[in-house]
Amino acid sequence: MSRPIISFLTDFGPDGAAAICRGVMIGIARDAQIIDISHAVRKYAVRDGAYLLWSAVPYLPSGVHVAVVDPGVGTERRPIGLLTARGDVLVGPDNGLLRPAAERLGGIESARVLENRNLMLPVTTATFHGRDLFAPVAGNLATGVAFEAVGPAVDPATLVDLRFPGAVVRGGALETVVVYVDSFGNLRLAGEPTDLHRALGTLEPGQRLAVEIAGAGGGRATLDAATFQPTFGHVAVGDPLVYVDSSGRLAYADNQGNAAARLGAEADRGVTIRAR
Amino acid sequence: MSRPIISFLTDFGPDGAAAICRGVMIGIARDAQIIDISHAVRKYAVRDGAYLLWSAVPYLPSGVHVAVVDPGVGTERRPIGLLTARGDVLVGPDNGLLRPAAERLGGIESARVLENRNLMLPVTTATFHGRDLFAPVAGNLATGVAFEAVGPAVDPATLVDLRFPGAVVRGGALETVVVYVDSFGNLRLAGEPTDLHRALGTLEPGQRLAVEIAGAGGGRATLDAATFQPTFGHVAVGDPLVYVDSSGRLAYADNQGNAAARLGAEADRGVTIRAR
Amino acid sequence: MSRPIISFLTDFGPDGAAAICRGVMIGIARDAQIIDISHAVRKYAVRDGAYLLWSAVPYLPSGVHVAVVDPGVGTERRPIGLLTARGDVLVGPDNGLLRPAAERLGGIESARVLENRNLMLPVTTATFHGRDLFAPVAGNLATGVAFEAVGPAVDPATLVDLRFPGAVVRGGALETVVVYVDSFGNLRLAGEPTDLHRALGTLEPGQRLAVEIAGAGGGRATLDAATFQPTFGHVAVGDPLVYVDSSGRLAYADNQGNAAARLGAEADRGVTIRAR
Repeated sequence: MSRPIISFLTDFGPDGAAAICRGVMIGIARDAQIIDISHAVRKYAVRDGAYLLWSAVPYLPSGVHVAVVDPGVGTERRPIGLLTARGDVLVGPDNGLLRPAAERLGGIESARVLENRNLMLPVTTATFHGRDLFAPVAGNLATGVAFEAVGPAVDPATLVDLRFPGAVVRGGALETVVVYVDSFGNLRLAGEPTDLHRALGTLEPGQRLAVEIAGAGGGRATLDAATFQPTFGHVAVGDPLVYVDSSGRLAYADNQGNAAARLGAEADRGVTIRAR
Repeated sequence: MSRPIISFLTDFGPDGAAAICRGVMIGIARDAQIIDISHAVRKYAVRDGAYLLWSAVPYLPSGVHVAVVDPGVGTERRPIGLLTARGDVLVGPDNGLLRPAAERLGGIESARVLENRNLMLPVTTATFHGRDLFAPVAGNLATGVAFEAVGPAVDPATLVDLRFPGAVVRGGALETVVVYVDSFGNLRLAGEPTDLHRALGTLEPGQRLAVEIAGAGGGRATLDAATFQPTFGHVAVGDPLVYVDSSGRLAYADNQGNAAARLGAEADRGVTIRAR
Repeated sequence: MSRPIISFLTDFGPDGAAAICRGVMIGIARDAQIIDISHAVRKYAVRDGAYLLWSAVPYLPSGVHVAVVDPGVGTERRPIGLLTARGDVLVGPDNGLLRPAAERLGGIESARVLENRNLMLPVTTATFHGRDLFAPVAGNLATGVAFEAVGPAVDPATLVDLRFPGAVVRGGALETVVVYVDSFGNLRLAGEPTDLHRALGTLEPGQRLAVEIAGAGGGRATLDAATFQPTFGHVAVGDPLVYVDSSGRLAYADNQGNAAARLGAEADRGVTIRAR
């Protein structure tokens, strides 16, 4: 029989908190295979975490996925589990973090509040639910505990929602926004190639584009002359390009450079793309 | 039978040294489950490493725990193994790194100097005992080699000691100190809630506190108006709080902020807490 | 039977791309033991990646080693597999990344271009061959798929070469160069102790050395008074030393300091070592 899979994403950083949770999970599910997605999510950035989880889950084996970016730990926000159509269970706080990934796994079949204290550590502190609550529940699910055992069902409509921003076609331009900045400094944008096609009327490799990136705090925008390309190496080193990223969404990068650093760009910054 | 557990903590950073040690351990103990605690311990900071190990071991399954923060590598400092009352074996340099964790696992049952070269790599360099000595000894222990085989017993009283700083109640104030700064910028302090209670005579959620954080190099202190709270979300975003951390010790944080960065605070900085 | 080993090195950074590849590999080879070498390779720095892979492979169990530092992803550069004399298979882009490691594993027995799409994900994007191509091929190899199945053989002489810089003895000096800067800030240099011996005529612990480190962009060099030592702790804290690193090459460090930061040194900077 295959080892059960637990994937694990947090903003805990490099200093031991994630390992403590791994220890708890392995202590319960000794044969579990833990796949760490990331523990370097920007602190408190629920949407960044949701984006990374959404981008990862289609490529992970079915199993339990624990995600903890949880500025509301210990407050009234609910700890939840989501059973998805693919058969995965997502475990984490009810702050939107799990929703996009659940949709990508076929949608929510059933949602439950984590209330069964027999599946948690004996003492649950107010500041480390990753260790005391989410990790042990995930470990127990990995050993085969039924999803129904975690706690009472809740109406999925009551869950905190989180949607990624969208792109708008207006006046021959695509008005989009930075959804996530990856570790290469590439700007992952709202919208898909079809949106850009609708805005520009054409979309061939090499298409010349004018890309306007909003400044910080409404400050001066940067206007880049870029091209649409299948991949980075089709432009000179340092040159910018618009491309379709590995999730099928639009993105903006400097070939072998760091566009985010050059532009001072960050999540939610507006980006307007026109033909030139 | 369960896979043997090896936990692993170093200051080796992200560039391959930890993986080399993992390769050595897995090469010897093919079925070992390695739990990386952290490899981002502040370089050469033995006490930071000791703190993280101490905070993690109660939540890790029993097994072998290898820790290497070792500015004295290759000098006269001894490589040691500590058998603890819980049955774990700690492996690393005799510089204090392992002591607090050993105490937390019930205390040292037996201490030995690692001298059995049959349990090490054939060549032991002077600069990488993690690879050449600690990892292979740990791998061998994980396969079931008896602790007695690692080398001669030594009197635990001869081991280098390391104690975390303490807190002092004086004149209606708690004089404490930063023991560790975590990756959120939260200041983990010396002392427990009972200490603060002794100093203030009361300790209710919402209790108003005046917190003075010493400046760098005896420079100007910062005086914060804070409150005592069960968790972060009980104060406004950016506001400071004193709380009981997940190890049961006092700590100081900014809700969704980075207190250490705001205050320029680091380990060993004095912190005085009074009622207001 | 032992779990198959897959080692994994990239410049993907901390945000999920490496985990996605791990998910793909585990999805195919459920019992594989993945050893992450590093995902913090300097972005686009093929030689840094080659150096880390070269330094690690002798200490890893035999298996599949996937390495992706791939600024040319999606262009004409070939995806390759290298079967080595030790029996390992290296998988990655044909940009030199794999060559030094292959030499260290006994040399290339056979090289093949990865062309068998049955061993890849159904859709291969132009920007994430780690996920779509290298990871699934590696996973399939780990399950026992024959190396011959990955694609047609190519003449190893046609592969992109990558050699580490060398050291030159000239006029009683060793003219060497920084090959890699590790996370401690230690400068890993070209050349071995025998080279330094040839230059200086002697090489005893404590030997006094004059070390000249070239400045950035041909700028002003730094002249350090250092000594040759077996290990860091033989000089005072903060003092520089020349030593033989754990790969048997020359290196330059500040004891418990960060020589690279102090000197502003980086890869390819010239270093001249003389007696004093």
